[in-house]
Amino acid sequence: MTLIRMVTGLLIAWMTIATAHGGDAGPAPNGIELPAGYKDWRVIASSHREDNSTLRVILGNDAAIEAARTGNTNPWPDGSILAKLVWKDTAHPAWPKATVPGEFVHAEFMVKDSAAYPATGGWGYARWKGLDQQPYGADASFVQECHGCHTPVKDNDYVFTHPASLP
Amino acid sequence: MTLIRMVTGLLIAWMTIATAHGGDAGPAPNGIELPAGYKDWRVIASSHREDNSTLRVILGNDAAIEAARTGNTNPWPDGSILAKLVWKDTAHPAWPKATVPGEFVHAEFMVKDSAAYPATGGWGYARWKGLDQQPYGADASFVQECHGCHTPVKDNDYVFTHPASLP
Repeated sequence: MTLIRMVTGLLIAWMTIATAHGGDAGPAPNGIELPAGYKDWRVIASSHREDNSTLRVILGNDAAIEAARTGNTNPWPDGSILAKLVWKDTAHPAWPKATVPGEFVHAEFMVKDSAAYPATGGWGYARWKGLDQQPYGADASFVQECHGCHTPVKDNDYVFTHPASLP
Repeated sequence: MTLIRMVTGLLIAWMTIATAHGGDAGPAPNGIELPAGYKDWRVIASSHREDNSTLRVILGNDAAIEAARTGNTNPWPDGSILAKLVWKDTAHPAWPKATVPGEFVHAEFMVKDSAAYPATGGWGYARWKGLDQQPYGADASFVQECHGCHTPVKDNDYVFTHPASLP
């Protein structure tokens, strides 16, 4: 009975993971769907953009984490997805010299699929704005804005993020 | 056969998780062991301490994530563990107004166990320094330094971190 219960529990856990979805957010104008379960992904790095006063945490799906931890990120392998969660700066109420996450701004994604996105360096781009996760962009041409901004880091496979050093 | 293979695969995955450990790092002087698999924990918040030029990502074990996502953090429930990963600031080479993680400084932990740590607000503290994860503190009294610094946020259960807003 103990083994049966354990196996049943594992199957339920597996089915829960397999059927997890991204909620009610609609797809981006280029057809990319909000990646399922991205808030549960593991961390790759963080950043603080002082030019636009935002804090960021960069997460990765399993393929991206594997690539980051093995130094296989130039290029990132097909199947990698990077998620950047962005908040407006706010000062910590009890420690004002610490900048901490305030209002949630957006979640944005880079999806590596060399065959699907040859015109933008093998990356599909998408962003969902605000807590209600509204897709960004009036039409599919919004990706030109993303790709243009990432072109200065073409030599790093168009990715600004360098995986943070970890023990 | 397919079911047997699937169940076998799940059992192997479960055993791998169950036997994961924190590596060769020794325990903290107060006996706390480096929490297993902490680098795989999910994100609660980030911060940028401009007073000492460090970037931080705050992760939580499953109990802490459940508490954070349900607003049950004052007090945090017993079993919660918070992990703070700390890096020295560095400027992004291609975007100098972005501060990104440089040298890894340390990983530090707060372990909520009201029965075990009544003298320090129900929290056990521990820190491991550097990429080689050297335990911090000459003896168990190091926790007075931790607890003293956290006392200004006693009204927030001695925790500086406020879970970041998420969709």
